Amino acid sequence: MPTIKYYLREGLLPAGELTSPNQAHYGEEHLRRLRLVRALLDVGGLSLASVKEVLGLIDAQDESLHQKLGLVQEAITTPSGAPLDPAAVDQANAYLDRLGLPREDHGVEQSRVTRRLAEALSAARQVGHDRFAELLDAYADGLRIMAEADVAYIAKHSKVDDVVEGMVVATLIGDAVLTAARRLAQVPVSERLIGTGD
Amino acid sequence: MPTIKYYLREGLLPAGELTSPNQAHYGEEHLRRLRLVRALLDVGGLSLASVKEVLGLIDAQDESLHQKLGLVQEAITTPSGAPLDPAAVDQANAYLDRLGLPREDHGVEQSRVTRRLAEALSAARQVGHDRFAELLDAYADGLRIMAEADVAYIAKHSKVDDVVEGMVVATLIGDAVLTAARRLAQVPVSERLIGTGD
Repeated sequence: MPTIKYYLREGLLPAGELTSPNQAHYGEEHLRRLRLVRALLDVGGLSLASVKEVLGLIDAQDESLHQKLGLVQEAITTPSGAPLDPAAVDQANAYLDRLGLPREDHGVEQSRVTRRLAEALSAARQVGHDRFAELLDAYADGLRIMAEADVAYIAKHSKVDDVVEGMVVATLIGDAVLTAARRLAQVPVSERLIGTGD
Repeated sequence: MPTIKYYLREGLLPAGELTSPNQAHYGEEHLRRLRLVRALLDVGGLSLASVKEVLGLIDAQDESLHQKLGLVQEAITTPSGAPLDPAAVDQANAYLDRLGLPREDHGVEQSRVTRRLAEALSAARQVGHDRFAELLDAYADGLRIMAEADVAYIAKHSKVDDVVEGMVVATLIGDAVLTAARRLAQVPVSERLIGTGD
């Protein structure tokens, strides 16, 4: 297990319980932490420093699990830093309003996730798709259904490490599943709406 | 307009109608093609050779618009080439069945899009999330709603270049909008289902 030794040395895993001078016992909690560290490194592509930061957030005593999930979601999100079109920021804010998320907590200055949304809407405007946000409106019911599924998927675990690990996997691998599944879901709709037209 | 000259030289835009020995007139069709070429290069990140290939597909006489959209969707998709877990291929096939898409046309050997889906499901299995495909099942209704919105967004145009341009933008910028919007949609659900629990 060279990897585990490496994680121990880097402080990503707590030391096991010594059962003899050169043997340590690792229990269920260690296994959870190990799975989480691997998800953050391998699936999330996070640096060792970021993983340590995330583990610190998870181990903090004064935050609810919901708050921890939000902090981790931010930690695994990297905006491109592209300039934002003010009209796209308005569109992102309108989406926050729709979800009932206060702008003072979730605005583009407060949240990397919202910034990424505003960046994507800015990119759409830049290529002349000013009304792309209407598509986001039309997605709303679908997004709600998927968010319910995501949260149910991760909430079936009872330990915080498992919940966070589930969120990291569901978020990052979920992106790839979702974007591919979406293209396939378009095929029968296109066949029906466009197929025989031209 | 140095860019337009470059596109003309590379054969991505047809020559305009000569109105005098050194002036050419470019009409509405040229503008459509210009928008499409920019979407493929700038939004899609395609190479010049790929753009030419896509334009050839669009200009082919013997395919329906629906078929052209499918061919372009494939052309703008690049699987990672990661090894596929046979169980993940089964899960991807089950999704095709659900959409009514024949495996002999849309299987992992035939479609880069399906291959990408199977790659993502393989990645989930590799980190111990064997039941990730259940999440895909739970997404199904949401995905259908979004696919209807996507196709309606692109089908409001009447010219093939505009329809394809809309699809490229909606697909690629849509991925970024969707994955960010999904994270935000999780927040109120997490607050309700997880928030007060821990």
